[in-house]
Amino acid sequence: MKIYFDNAATTPVAPEVIQAMTETLNDVFGNPSSIHEYGRKARVLIENSRKSVANNLNVSPSEIIFTSGGTEADNTAIRGAVFDLGVKHIITSKIEHPAVLNTLDILEKENKVKVSFVKLTENGHIDLNNLEEILSTTSNSMVSLMHANNEIGNLLPMKDVSGICEKYNAFFMSDTVQTMGKYANNFQNFNLHFAACSAHKFYGPKGIGFLYINGNNKISPMLFGGGQERGMRSGTENIHGIVGLAKAMELSYLHLERDQKNISEMKSLMIALLKEKVNGISFNGDCENGGLYSLLNVSFPKTMKSEMLLQNLDINGIAVSGGSACASGSVHVSHVLEEISTDIDRPSIRFSFGRYNNVEEVKYTVEKLVQHLN
Amino acid sequence: MKIYFDNAATTPVAPEVIQAMTETLNDVFGNPSSIHEYGRKARVLIENSRKSVANNLNVSPSEIIFTSGGTEADNTAIRGAVFDLGVKHIITSKIEHPAVLNTLDILEKENKVKVSFVKLTENGHIDLNNLEEILSTTSNSMVSLMHANNEIGNLLPMKDVSGICEKYNAFFMSDTVQTMGKYANNFQNFNLHFAACSAHKFYGPKGIGFLYINGNNKISPMLFGGGQERGMRSGTENIHGIVGLAKAMELSYLHLERDQKNISEMKSLMIALLKEKVNGISFNGDCENGGLYSLLNVSFPKTMKSEMLLQNLDINGIAVSGGSACASGSVHVSHVLEEISTDIDRPSIRFSFGRYNNVEEVKYTVEKLVQHLN
Repeated sequence: MKIYFDNAATTPVAPEVIQAMTETLNDVFGNPSSIHEYGRKARVLIENSRKSVANNLNVSPSEIIFTSGGTEADNTAIRGAVFDLGVKHIITSKIEHPAVLNTLDILEKENKVKVSFVKLTENGHIDLNNLEEILSTTSNSMVSLMHANNEIGNLLPMKDVSGICEKYNAFFMSDTVQTMGKYANNFQNFNLHFAACSAHKFYGPKGIGFLYINGNNKISPMLFGGGQERGMRSGTENIHGIVGLAKAMELSYLHLERDQKNISEMKSLMIALLKEKVNGISFNGDCENGGLYSLLNVSFPKTMKSEMLLQNLDINGIAVSGGSACASGSVHVSHVLEEISTDIDRPSIRFSFGRYNNVEEVKYTVEKLVQHLN
Repeated sequence: MKIYFDNAATTPVAPEVIQAMTETLNDVFGNPSSIHEYGRKARVLIENSRKSVANNLNVSPSEIIFTSGGTEADNTAIRGAVFDLGVKHIITSKIEHPAVLNTLDILEKENKVKVSFVKLTENGHIDLNNLEEILSTTSNSMVSLMHANNEIGNLLPMKDVSGICEKYNAFFMSDTVQTMGKYANNFQNFNLHFAACSAHKFYGPKGIGFLYINGNNKISPMLFGGGQERGMRSGTENIHGIVGLAKAMELSYLHLERDQKNISEMKSLMIALLKEKVNGISFNGDCENGGLYSLLNVSFPKTMKSEMLLQNLDINGIAVSGGSACASGSVHVSHVLEEISTDIDRPSIRFSFGRYNNVEEVKYTVEKLVQHLN
């Protein structure tokens, strides 16, 4: 049995998405900037995809800029805020994604911006009082906080944060990579200026994502050249990727309730079985009682056996993550777990469930866990 | 009959490439940073692709950084040269690709670098004497000149230019987007520091390319985040794109002689037929007697009919370009033809031939041209 429980790192590509991409690769290869029929066909596909994405988020198509992925979207938004919108101060948290933290780090080292870290509650939530405190003493600020944390799944109260930002006249940017396609997203519900998205987190292809830029903001591009994406992102458009992203998003919203229900059930079952069968476990963040419905971060008692858990699951064909996927290639402690006062000596595992998983896989995984722990 | 003679704008994707990409999308979806089996499979595919690309260019795999395309590669190299290698002065030409010209323009406006334009000969070649003159009066310089011009196909004498750069201790960067996969490229033959490549110009997918960085240079990334590509380019890797790029390059070198022969024959036939059947034409650049073997840029006498040539060819299912593909979406005069003292009032057409064209298509196109001009 092969089980993939690492959907927060990346998801399998939906068969419907692969089909749409393959059709595009075969039939629509023109350069969208060409004025002949081949070019026009490509242009139509891109603009239809943009409209579809925009409709799903209730924004204007002109507010969607396709990028090579979430990292480029995060980088573009942050640089744009600093270099074009006069942002002098960015408030973020220590448990953000490296695409935000490392971009801020370099800009702060270059003296382009001051970075403040908002306090976290014990289980990894943003301390909203502290956020207000910081904002009340600064000006020309932007808040950059992710919608769902990629390691512990804590959800940001978007409406509250956007309200606070509005009160203090601060820009609000959110890395929505982990939640896009997982919730009914209506960007009109809050005062959001930038959001980053990556297709491969919701059964779309890698190498494509987008940046939502609220139409009231004008920022400069990061990439200069032929002036594609209305001058906001030069480079010949990744047509099959864009088509794949739009298709994946369409499917996510089409199956939203079904997927939410099924995946939530898997998570609940996993929690119940772990509590029943494994002694001394604890859940990181607030994923036991809330948070992203697809993610469960569990710490195990430190024993000789539990330290080999990841490897033993892998040998048994069960793929899970020992931390942030982006960091999991190298063996270092999760910066997220470290921040939320988890006992980082204890081995922890992130289970992240997806559309193509089922409850049988959950039962089998707990069986194997029990086997390897005893 | 449908004829695609705009291969310099972008190429059809080779069926073998689509197959390799579809297989990857179906079978290898893991995050290459994940340490479990899914991640390792993805990692192996990427590193094998990198080795294959590096072997084709006779460079080290560590010198190949996958990017989202040629534009990102150009931008990364130029910014890296200026911000990390101490380059204060960049010498380029006015007929470079916008990915170079617009990046330089913004950096010059920000007072980060001084830009000089080397003189061009009447048919659009780089005046090498002038290049030496400029280099002899500057220091901390980089020369950025493309291998083949994308509009007129003029080829840069890479060895001569790299020799001049070496003599004056200047870095040498070349946008090799139009020549990659079209010639036996041995990067050890010259003193080259950066080269940009885009897969969709040699029957590979859009949205993927690479930057060659000579191993002796260390530059900073443009995108910050998870530290992929050995820290040089953050963002989850576009695995199917990378596989497609490597496959496309492999095929290009496998079929190099065959394609060179067939495509050169098409170009020669087109030249002969045009000279025979159309009065008052002229060839732009030196594409009549040399230059890129796949490209022919022709000016037609200015008449009521010739001004509608592009549209009429399009209506007849023949796709050609009226200038640089990246600029062809908007109706403005080609910056390249303007520079090389072409009579820009005369309508000009760029025919660019490819692997999937044949001589019958050439004959048919000339027939239609004659029809529409008379």
